[in-house]
Amino acid sequence: MYYLWKRVRSIFLDCYFAEATIREGKPCKRIVLHYHDIIFNGTNKENATSAISANATALGKFKFGQLVIFDDPLTEDQNLLSPPVARAQGLYFYDMKSTYNAWFSCTLIFNSTQHTGTINMMGADMMDSETRDLSVVGGTGDFFMTRGIATFTTDTFQGAAYFRLKMDIKLYECY
Amino acid sequence: MYYLWKRVRSIFLDCYFAEATIREGKPCKRIVLHYHDIIFNGTNKENATSAISANATALGKFKFGQLVIFDDPLTEDQNLLSPPVARAQGLYFYDMKSTYNAWFSCTLIFNSTQHTGTINMMGADMMDSETRDLSVVGGTGDFFMTRGIATFTTDTFQGAAYFRLKMDIKLYECY
Amino acid sequence: MYYLWKRVRSIFLDCYFAEATIREGKPCKRIVLHYHDIIFNGTNKENATSAISANATALGKFKFGQLVIFDDPLTEDQNLLSPPVARAQGLYFYDMKSTYNAWFSCTLIFNSTQHTGTINMMGADMMDSETRDLSVVGGTGDFFMTRGIATFTTDTFQGAAYFRLKMDIKLYECY
Repeated sequence: MYYLWKRVRSIFLDCYFAEATIREGKPCKRIVLHYHDIIFNGTNKENATSAISANATALGKFKFGQLVIFDDPLTEDQNLLSPPVARAQGLYFYDMKSTYNAWFSCTLIFNSTQHTGTINMMGADMMDSETRDLSVVGGTGDFFMTRGIATFTTDTFQGAAYFRLKMDIKLYECY
Repeated sequence: MYYLWKRVRSIFLDCYFAEATIREGKPCKRIVLHYHDIIFNGTNKENATSAISANATALGKFKFGQLVIFDDPLTEDQNLLSPPVARAQGLYFYDMKSTYNAWFSCTLIFNSTQHTGTINMMGADMMDSETRDLSVVGGTGDFFMTRGIATFTTDTFQGAAYFRLKMDIKLYECY
Repeated sequence: MYYLWKRVRSIFLDCYFAEATIREGKPCKRIVLHYHDIIFNGTNKENATSAISANATALGKFKFGQLVIFDDPLTEDQNLLSPPVARAQGLYFYDMKSTYNAWFSCTLIFNSTQHTGTINMMGADMMDSETRDLSVVGGTGDFFMTRGIATFTTDTFQGAAYFRLKMDIKLYECY
């Protein structure tokens, strides 16, 4: 009886703090990563990490309709040559007539001593905003059933050649 | 001690009603919007809101494989010329041999006095059904961590030129 | 008062077991299905269930960038000719330079005496791993608001012609 009471209490307290966590926006886990994207241009096979799967249309001058598929390294600092701690696999595409604006859906894959598992996210990447929030909609392994917010910031954007995003991943559901 | 008790009680009651809400299908927030899609045909640059990123294949006669990227206005009534209260950015594609049937994944972006933030959704759009349900899988800003159901109804479908959907968005998790 | 107490207790116990379910990884519902994919090659219109919407790029030898749209049958056993109990509609694409590796986003559509509704999932399909976990991010109908994990195993992979996956779907949130 006492044991049951203890379990009930422990679950209740977990519930209590989990609810409070979500309500007050305090992450139960937070990971900051830098995402490096080098588009394949036909001659950089060694370095390229992504490729244009569908070409831009003639709707506007900001690559509307261009769809890129990527397998991009994620590093803890901003250095492209740092050892990746995870990879991001997925797609993005450009979707505005009047400015550069993108939409992402991807999986972060962790396979290190620190973390094993995946984080799945999607959302609009409004590139003109200094920061923009996407949704973490699920996870597996160490990130089993997680949810949260991924805040993107552009570190650098070198047109077609290379860009780097900071992904500040705040998880509010952890199991 | 009394203060703690009050907080525990308040969280418990929130929990209680949140659970009841989900179980009984009573939305904590509901938004009805109309989605307008005008495909770019090469000559309507001013009005077009979407473009064909990948062409239909020869599998059947219902555009199987055609992938469209959009940045579509969302209005409160059915009138295309009403001031948009949000935009929908994302993709849809056709995916059946025997009839028109689509699949959607997109972000609703709100930036008005009423709402700021995004709603992310995905799911099958079985166009032959009078209504069909997609999943709201996450949100940001005013819609932080939300989940729910988006029920689509076809308002009008004018082939390649223009179509309009009613999106009845019922949120069952609100923070 | 007594009635209210009974409802509070019942919700609390539901909460208690729901939390325990998620924490301990015991699914509240489990469905195992086999997914059959036959790519359209120009001449197999009758049998094809999917089509290449965007072609592979020259980045590596493993179809990097190829995007496939599908409407694939799901059967309870491994037999392609068994009556489908559901369909999977969505997309996958290849996204690695060094090996076959895919990324999926799709909806399972149930419309039988057993189940009505949809399950939405997304994630990386690391084909070299014996099993890999994707996220179930939402559901509708009988699967209203569900979340969970879909574990993929390759049953058979016959190159461009045909492949079959086992999808072991474990739902941890059921309403």
